Amino acid sequence: MSARIDALPEGITTLADYEPLARACLNPTTWHYLHDGSGNGLSLAANRQAFETVPLIPRPLVDVRQGNTRLTLFGQTLLHPILLAPIAYQRLFHPDGECATSMAAAAQGGAMVISSLASQSIEEIVEAGCQIGVAPWFQLYWQGERERTLRLARRAEVAGCPALMLTVDAPFKQSTLVLPEGVAAENLEQPLMADQVPSGQSRVFQGWMAQAPTWDDLAWLRERIRLPLIVKGVLHPDDAERVVGLGCDGLVVSNHGGRVLDGAPASLLALPPILSRVAGRVPVLLDSGIRSGCDVFKALSLGASAVLLGRPYIWGLACAGAFGVAHVIRLMRDELEATMALCGCAELSQIVQTRNL
Amino acid sequence: MSARIDALPEGITTLADYEPLARACLNPTTWHYLHDGSGNGLSLAANRQAFETVPLIPRPLVDVRQGNTRLTLFGQTLLHPILLAPIAYQRLFHPDGECATSMAAAAQGGAMVISSLASQSIEEIVEAGCQIGVAPWFQLYWQGERERTLRLARRAEVAGCPALMLTVDAPFKQSTLVLPEGVAAENLEQPLMADQVPSGQSRVFQGWMAQAPTWDDLAWLRERIRLPLIVKGVLHPDDAERVVGLGCDGLVVSNHGGRVLDGAPASLLALPPILSRVAGRVPVLLDSGIRSGCDVFKALSLGASAVLLGRPYIWGLACAGAFGVAHVIRLMRDELEATMALCGCAELSQIVQTRNL
Amino acid sequence: MSARIDALPEGITTLADYEPLARACLNPTTWHYLHDGSGNGLSLAANRQAFETVPLIPRPLVDVRQGNTRLTLFGQTLLHPILLAPIAYQRLFHPDGECATSMAAAAQGGAMVISSLASQSIEEIVEAGCQIGVAPWFQLYWQGERERTLRLARRAEVAGCPALMLTVDAPFKQSTLVLPEGVAAENLEQPLMADQVPSGQSRVFQGWMAQAPTWDDLAWLRERIRLPLIVKGVLHPDDAERVVGLGCDGLVVSNHGGRVLDGAPASLLALPPILSRVAGRVPVLLDSGIRSGCDVFKALSLGASAVLLGRPYIWGLACAGAFGVAHVIRLMRDELEATMALCGCAELSQIVQTRNL
Amino acid sequence: MSARIDALPEGITTLADYEPLARACLNPTTWHYLHDGSGNGLSLAANRQAFETVPLIPRPLVDVRQGNTRLTLFGQTLLHPILLAPIAYQRLFHPDGECATSMAAAAQGGAMVISSLASQSIEEIVEAGCQIGVAPWFQLYWQGERERTLRLARRAEVAGCPALMLTVDAPFKQSTLVLPEGVAAENLEQPLMADQVPSGQSRVFQGWMAQAPTWDDLAWLRERIRLPLIVKGVLHPDDAERVVGLGCDGLVVSNHGGRVLDGAPASLLALPPILSRVAGRVPVLLDSGIRSGCDVFKALSLGASAVLLGRPYIWGLACAGAFGVAHVIRLMRDELEATMALCGCAELSQIVQTRNL
Repeated sequence: MSARIDALPEGITTLADYEPLARACLNPTTWHYLHDGSGNGLSLAANRQAFETVPLIPRPLVDVRQGNTRLTLFGQTLLHPILLAPIAYQRLFHPDGECATSMAAAAQGGAMVISSLASQSIEEIVEAGCQIGVAPWFQLYWQGERERTLRLARRAEVAGCPALMLTVDAPFKQSTLVLPEGVAAENLEQPLMADQVPSGQSRVFQGWMAQAPTWDDLAWLRERIRLPLIVKGVLHPDDAERVVGLGCDGLVVSNHGGRVLDGAPASLLALPPILSRVAGRVPVLLDSGIRSGCDVFKALSLGASAVLLGRPYIWGLACAGAFGVAHVIRLMRDELEATMALCGCAELSQIVQTRNL
Repeated sequence: MSARIDALPEGITTLADYEPLARACLNPTTWHYLHDGSGNGLSLAANRQAFETVPLIPRPLVDVRQGNTRLTLFGQTLLHPILLAPIAYQRLFHPDGECATSMAAAAQGGAMVISSLASQSIEEIVEAGCQIGVAPWFQLYWQGERERTLRLARRAEVAGCPALMLTVDAPFKQSTLVLPEGVAAENLEQPLMADQVPSGQSRVFQGWMAQAPTWDDLAWLRERIRLPLIVKGVLHPDDAERVVGLGCDGLVVSNHGGRVLDGAPASLLALPPILSRVAGRVPVLLDSGIRSGCDVFKALSLGASAVLLGRPYIWGLACAGAFGVAHVIRLMRDELEATMALCGCAELSQIVQTRNL
Repeated sequence: MSARIDALPEGITTLADYEPLARACLNPTTWHYLHDGSGNGLSLAANRQAFETVPLIPRPLVDVRQGNTRLTLFGQTLLHPILLAPIAYQRLFHPDGECATSMAAAAQGGAMVISSLASQSIEEIVEAGCQIGVAPWFQLYWQGERERTLRLARRAEVAGCPALMLTVDAPFKQSTLVLPEGVAAENLEQPLMADQVPSGQSRVFQGWMAQAPTWDDLAWLRERIRLPLIVKGVLHPDDAERVVGLGCDGLVVSNHGGRVLDGAPASLLALPPILSRVAGRVPVLLDSGIRSGCDVFKALSLGASAVLLGRPYIWGLACAGAFGVAHVIRLMRDELEATMALCGCAELSQIVQTRNL
Repeated sequence: MSARIDALPEGITTLADYEPLARACLNPTTWHYLHDGSGNGLSLAANRQAFETVPLIPRPLVDVRQGNTRLTLFGQTLLHPILLAPIAYQRLFHPDGECATSMAAAAQGGAMVISSLASQSIEEIVEAGCQIGVAPWFQLYWQGERERTLRLARRAEVAGCPALMLTVDAPFKQSTLVLPEGVAAENLEQPLMADQVPSGQSRVFQGWMAQAPTWDDLAWLRERIRLPLIVKGVLHPDDAERVVGLGCDGLVVSNHGGRVLDGAPASLLALPPILSRVAGRVPVLLDSGIRSGCDVFKALSLGASAVLLGRPYIWGLACAGAFGVAHVIRLMRDELEATMALCGCAELSQIVQTRNL
């Protein structure tokens, strides 16, 4: 790893300051691949709007001198509730790729989630985090059929990942990005070829969807996985119920950062009905739209156990590798702490009580 | 027909990518004739806003491997629910005009609706579609008086159109477009002269409206037409009731693409009360504002049986003739299939059930 | 009068087309004097927004061949319900000033309302309208004290005005416009000097407001005026009640075109509660925000008897004198007729029934 | 003091006219320090939006010839309800600094509130106001511990301030502004060093918050202060209740001008529930978002006893020292009087009754 220790940019006071710097670091194609939402960007915008409508009520004069942001999640102790969401091909953004992210997450006392489409080997990435003290999780895309999917899951388990996150909301490839020489999905067997179907058949239904997982597949997988299994990409309470009913350990309310179905509701708006159906049986995480520590507070105030941070940590990665990612996380933590302090919360568990107004 | 097979533009991934290309192909007057709404464009904008507020809820893990988009409409089997709306004078946009549109629609397994103001003969346009396997429908404007209107309807029937669509919401000419040499309403008898009225009379009431159809005229026509007769331009449930009561076979909820009464509600917002009044007695189609396959899904989710696509197919026609139109339809179908797959629908009939949340 | 008969601008299809032409005709100071709202323009914008939210529902197939827009108002028969609002100093906009407006209004079968601050004599302006067949009304500003106000009212009566409109919502001068040489309030006695008050007193309370009318003054005036007396500038139902209780003949719901109290509600929003309090005892007119024939229809659909058109007729005056004003009125009438025809109304009295949906 | 008597800018008709002039007077860093909100500016924008949604209903024909804007607040008689909010380091904006502000406030018959972070001595600033006849109030920031805070409060009391305002909503330094040579917090003992904490501790919780006041500290202070003690920075009704319960004399509903917790609600929206909880036991003032005399009226119409004006008076200070500040206040008073007159209010106490519609 060639981390450049002197690369931390100057004059950064909030997360948002990283965005233009990252944009300047990346070629436009890569930038748009990272940033754009699908279709007309309705869901991408809806995510932001949803956060902007959740008010924060300052509560001064509370004694929070013992304050902290610690939590335990699926048996793992973390210093803060900000997970790094699975993002594919991180060597597109920085030569140190996922290893830099893994180190930075661990250095800040939190976990990253390795993408199935990681551009470095699972084992390397796990090692980068574990040597600092926190093992990354692994995100699983369905591999077209059961055994191939299970092989990938087992590999992550053997490598030391403490939790698996199965993404179910993105059954087909949407991006038209052409990967540059030397960047590839390092951990996958041969690529799936779903695009070609016999004439008269549908590329969607008989192509991609024939390789997507079903509820039966999830049940089959659940029985064969010992690690905590978390399902990512749930927006409907009935699906949350079914995920819990199959014995999964958690779920992530997500619209995939507005990158899949344009028109899907903001994750944050989908969260309350799901929480009320799940009723505390498993932790519910929130993904999509997190851009500041205030947003983390807002998600937790609605009842999320933790959040997944997406595009913003890649800004840090693009600008300054592991140091940039760590800086982004630190800024988020500082903002979360400041928001907690201003709202009179000394522990994460007090945040949800601020809604009872 | 001089279709230029090499003309399909590059880099198109969604329908919206065609818009700037088409604009560049057309002179500004023609572009504005195609695109502008009436007045201040309130209804034009309302159409889009209405679609943006209908949420889509992804339903992952459903088995949709047998999925398709087939339907039967007024006795005709179609591969998808996207009809091409009647648009006048298509030789304004491409020398191949309506014949190109008819071929493209048929090639994609769907039907176009020929405008009364088509710039090629009904018989040619029907032939262009029928040789590929799908006959186009015919849109009827009232021709000032009963017999003349009936003659035009009969001509379309003889030519082979399987359905007639009477437009009732545009009783007067609004456009000030001067047609270029060689582009004309090929199928009409002498033009109506409604603009000149005696002094003291109103050009609107005693001029144009004296040549517009009334409920009595519609009843008279209904008795004389054997083909399925569909009334286009209904926005009020009472009018829908009356159309059904007169024995018409279907209706199209439409604000004429925001081109007639500025301030008319979005068609999509007018749809639910009309559907609830019609109560399944006849199919109800939705016109105005469709810009993507997601929009088709949304219209069907509210209860429409099919939709009419307007301006966007003309973008394809302007850029690449029949190939462009076929490409636009293909993109729409792909988006519709993808939306169905992501929302867990394998058949069109399942789409309306996604509203029961 | 030096009307330039060849001055009607080309390419005008709607009222809005006149706005940029008028702006080009006038110096910026005059333009801003005409156009700007007070403060931050909240009320100016609210007027437009209010109209945009009133939907119009097309009702096709209705027989409106006998349609017309006639009405009788305060005993005067008018061909349409569009009055020209009192606007000061019209020679700022065109050398023919108020006389041009008066002629144009009469030629179109409607009435103008002469401002107390007219830049030509009342007698001339009345004569310009009467020779074509319609006498203008007169708008009365309170003249600091009772007898002086009454003298001005009597002068208008003697000149032949059939109705008086007392404006009560603008008790102090707001504009800082310096009138050019040769433009003045031709019909007023010496100007009021309200700006100077003893030290320690308020220019507002002890200055301007000491010269503003009170309810007692209105009662005093009502007893002394035989003509129909209409009060302009009412936005609260209690005030409407009091105006009617004092025996006034009508009222105008107005926020003075957004030119006085910034933050006052849109006139259109204030209309329904006032109509429901007045309950048909006197006609209620609507002023502020009218920009098209659709807007006239909307105001009447809520229950207004007629409307006052403001800035847009000055656009016509600035561009082409009497011919421009007449053209603006004609465009408005055409739009009103078209809207009526599309909404199935043959008479003004049917418009209010379109609300019962 | 070097007040430049000829410096009053030309062409100012409303407060807003000062903003661009002030911006031109100040270097960009100082301007942004003055103007920017925290985070994404949500709370800054929410303040303005809240004012824009409060309607004003004109009530013409009311006799307001005896009108005035006098009030008594915490025993002090003021000519109007517009206090100048505590703003730090005013010598950043003009060499005459807080003394200019104090003189201008007194000259206009109102009070300023001296910031704990004033750049001139409390004694000088008090003297500047008292020689004209109105003593300024003093704003107290918690000084890390009790005795040090009390020393500062006592100093202000001895200097002649008639009221103390304890700010509780800004427990940590947010600005990164580097003060220029010669500008400093003249009245503070050594600066607090909260930024440095042992490794593993939080700069927020164990750093800044360890030096912030708690409810116990407020109770302790209250017992030791004889002056009226007003708590600034309350947004939750429960906190308002507790402030009153501790025997404080008043409170200020404020989101600190959108400068602290981004996402805090608009002060104006937080005002009604607080007023209804306080139920008249103490005066409640409104801070944040006041930009015109209309806004003062709106705040009082909701029930505030007075308001604090922030950024706009600094615009006047930057442009023309004491004369600019006095001019800004005069413009605000004129607008308030005009709004009162147009809404039929002769006394401040009548304003709240305009809400009963």
